[in-house]
Amino acid sequence: MKEVAIGIDIGGTNTVFGIVDRHGRCLAKNSISTNSSIPPEKFFKILHEEIEKTLKKVKEKVVLKGVGIGAPNGNFYRGTIEYAANLKWKGIVDVVGILKKYFNVPVILTNDANAAAIGEMIYGGAKGMRDFIVITLGTGLGSGIVANGELIYGHDGFAGELGHTTYDYNGRRCGCGRKGCLEAYVSAGGIKKTFIELLKSKSNKSELRKVSFNKLTTEMISKAAKKGDKIAQETFEITGKILGIKLTDTVVHTSPEAIFLFGGIAKAGDLIFKPVKYHLEKNLLKIFKNKIKILPSALKDSDAAILGASALVWKSR
Amino acid sequence: MKEVAIGIDIGGTNTVFGIVDRHGRCLAKNSISTNSSIPPEKFFKILHEEIEKTLKKVKEKVVLKGVGIGAPNGNFYRGTIEYAANLKWKGIVDVVGILKKYFNVPVILTNDANAAAIGEMIYGGAKGMRDFIVITLGTGLGSGIVANGELIYGHDGFAGELGHTTYDYNGRRCGCGRKGCLEAYVSAGGIKKTFIELLKSKSNKSELRKVSFNKLTTEMISKAAKKGDKIAQETFEITGKILGIKLTDTVVHTSPEAIFLFGGIAKAGDLIFKPVKYHLEKNLLKIFKNKIKILPSALKDSDAAILGASALVWKSR
Repeated sequence: MKEVAIGIDIGGTNTVFGIVDRHGRCLAKNSISTNSSIPPEKFFKILHEEIEKTLKKVKEKVVLKGVGIGAPNGNFYRGTIEYAANLKWKGIVDVVGILKKYFNVPVILTNDANAAAIGEMIYGGAKGMRDFIVITLGTGLGSGIVANGELIYGHDGFAGELGHTTYDYNGRRCGCGRKGCLEAYVSAGGIKKTFIELLKSKSNKSELRKVSFNKLTTEMISKAAKKGDKIAQETFEITGKILGIKLTDTVVHTSPEAIFLFGGIAKAGDLIFKPVKYHLEKNLLKIFKNKIKILPSALKDSDAAILGASALVWKSR
Repeated sequence: MKEVAIGIDIGGTNTVFGIVDRHGRCLAKNSISTNSSIPPEKFFKILHEEIEKTLKKVKEKVVLKGVGIGAPNGNFYRGTIEYAANLKWKGIVDVVGILKKYFNVPVILTNDANAAAIGEMIYGGAKGMRDFIVITLGTGLGSGIVANGELIYGHDGFAGELGHTTYDYNGRRCGCGRKGCLEAYVSAGGIKKTFIELLKSKSNKSELRKVSFNKLTTEMISKAAKKGDKIAQETFEITGKILGIKLTDTVVHTSPEAIFLFGGIAKAGDLIFKPVKYHLEKNLLKIFKNKIKILPSALKDSDAAILGASALVWKSR
């Protein structure tokens, strides 16, 4: 009998799930659209049915050891999703409470960035590391901080919100209502804004001048940069510089061995990694210089979210 | 037989030490001047002799369980003092290696701010807390961060250097060579600088206008503020504001239940606590508002450094 965990990643659009063994092999997976227009009880009933179907597709004999869930604004201590901006459910949703009715094994929930960090620790590049950080770069900037071999949840379960450290007290308005948050610069939306600002202030040619703000994506900017578009290149340079500089503050908090960059924007490779590394090293306090690795996630990209969520099960044992 | 620990605090000027029981009662104590002009081996031999004399003064029968040391730039993992700016010893001093020759019990060393945090956890106001931070406000700004009930040392033993988070990238030169560090504003020297800047730019009367910069102390500024000196009051208001604003970044890292302010400047009471609390709450990300206590240290002032160092022994058991 092979021991397996179910990993569920609840996203704004889709909920993906898979059956994962201890070595991070995804034996079967599927997804449903995240329908948060219906009550949570109904949604998770449907999700459970789909998971059962998927479990039946696994050819080996398996024994289920637990269910791990990554979710926006997921609270580890309470097993709840709380006031998630990208979901239509209002207030606090007791996800673990609902799913416990269907599963006779531990059900564990945390936010998606924390799940990514646990995934990196159990299956990925952080195996054996006791102090590291995962930064998830996508629609927002999330983070999972591991110190002394344990994820830091904080007293209320909300630790690790590095997207809302402040880069510029008089800077861009952030979705959280405050000004100058790191996420307002280092995220998909932030990169687009920086690109548009540069387009306005510079006269360089750019094929992306004909693309509307709404249609513009970070992938387009990344592709253009790789083809030599100066404005697109400068956009990544500025983004990486801001992240690198701001990570110096994070380093003095927990002194990590490595910082992993995870998610869509990290796929831009050197475009983002080079300026992050350069400006981090340049601005670090002396005792931390030349010590900290900036690494890409080692999790298989297509399964990363499922792997992270499933890893919660192995970590808790 | 009463179990006791020796607590040693190595300061730039004096080294204080005491015999402390599990409840944080200091049974005997003494101090010698920190003579770092002589080789470390010689200094610690003398220190050991003085400690033995002090042990003999304890009237109860005691059994020694360990030796804890708080020291500037103390490294927990290596038991060393590394490149301490306030000591004359060059490079790396293997303090634990030297003291192990004299004591047949565990010898544990960390930096003074980490020792203060462990002291608060074992004997003070953080008893039972799993997530909290101690900020030491004195010549510099030090910090000890506790998460999941454990002090965060980081992969190299140097975590918790919050004095070197950056408040203003174009700001005051810091002793570390970088610009705008929190410590350049929120520390004894930082407060003096702010006061002098205000004296220059404002015309308010102040008795301290006749005191030279070298003779000026934070105690004088604090006393003047309590007597109604507007410039002295504004100095604390600005200092507390900067600390409060900057702590919002720290909160999103580890989400502590409480932040303790420890050391000389914290004795200014409401002068510093009020603006810290106000500007922290005002600037916090919504999910963290009205949750975090800003507290004075509950350790007995005169013994605080000895208590912190001795607590390392009980924490490690």
